Amino acid sequence: MMQDLPLSQVYQLLEPGPVVLLTTARKGRANIMTMSWHMMVEFEPPLIACVVSSADYSFAALRATKECVIAIPALELAPKVVEIGNCSGRDVEKFERFGLTSAPAERVAPPLVVECFANLECKVVDSRLVNKYNLFVLEVLKAWSDPAQKNPRTIHHQGYGRFVVDGETIKLKSRMR
Amino acid sequence: MMQDLPLSQVYQLLEPGPVVLLTTARKGRANIMTMSWHMMVEFEPPLIACVVSSADYSFAALRATKECVIAIPALELAPKVVEIGNCSGRDVEKFERFGLTSAPAERVAPPLVVECFANLECKVVDSRLVNKYNLFVLEVLKAWSDPAQKNPRTIHHQGYGRFVVDGETIKLKSRMR
Repeated sequence: MMQDLPLSQVYQLLEPGPVVLLTTARKGRANIMTMSWHMMVEFEPPLIACVVSSADYSFAALRATKECVIAIPALELAPKVVEIGNCSGRDVEKFERFGLTSAPAERVAPPLVVECFANLECKVVDSRLVNKYNLFVLEVLKAWSDPAQKNPRTIHHQGYGRFVVDGETIKLKSRMR
Repeated sequence: MMQDLPLSQVYQLLEPGPVVLLTTARKGRANIMTMSWHMMVEFEPPLIACVVSSADYSFAALRATKECVIAIPALELAPKVVEIGNCSGRDVEKFERFGLTSAPAERVAPPLVVECFANLECKVVDSRLVNKYNLFVLEVLKAWSDPAQKNPRTIHHQGYGRFVVDGETIKLKSRMR
């Protein structure tokens, strides 16, 4: 169902600031977390910076394996996205608990999340700011999108469980990419 | 008109991923650019990472002075925000050209943008990733909000001048801050 997404289009998904899911895998066990602190760093190959708190169970897996998948959920998944953020992979098998479907990635060990409309397979390329800020720089190796999910609306966290949903779109004459 | 915004609330403005303006000042001359590549790094004191391309006129000013203001515009400013991004401070006095009002900041030399609903006075606290990625880590020293702009809707860039505007908000039971 998932089809190739050109790497040159990845920034168009993350630049607007959606809440995303991040999957990791360690010792054969996959985990998912919810993440809002990410940004684009370069268009192509796409580089992404993100902050994963050292208090999160995913932190150790990401630091050790240097691999993750960023999966982008549409509005319909919002309740699950929040519940995923409310518990820890220390205690919960999240794919099973939340009825999410994993699928093998092509370039990394962590799985794709089939219910998400886009999945980005990433490796850590710079760890210099990890110790001080928990800030990882990732390169997207492979990107997928689900053509069956047309015009997905994403959610943006405003704090304490309040999310703003994508509304209308406007087009302005920009010279910017 | 602008009033103090507690530093603990800053992340609620930037985490949702709005397009922002960034002001710098060098040799007595202020400049503005449009920016979408930013993220929160820490709640309090608020740390922000951002990417300012070395092709942007603001890059040299930010690197040299280590100071900037991040100003957050509401939807009504969208046409100006795009035009600000379409030209360079090399050629244009942007405050004058776009009829924007500057006001002195309290802790840094770059000015506030009065028409924006929030202004964040920032200093560069980490430059380790500047040479390789144009990535700056900023600390917010002082934050302002305009109480006259109630429930501002922000814009989120999807590429090539297409912006998604804040729509409805939803509330879900989150344990996350």
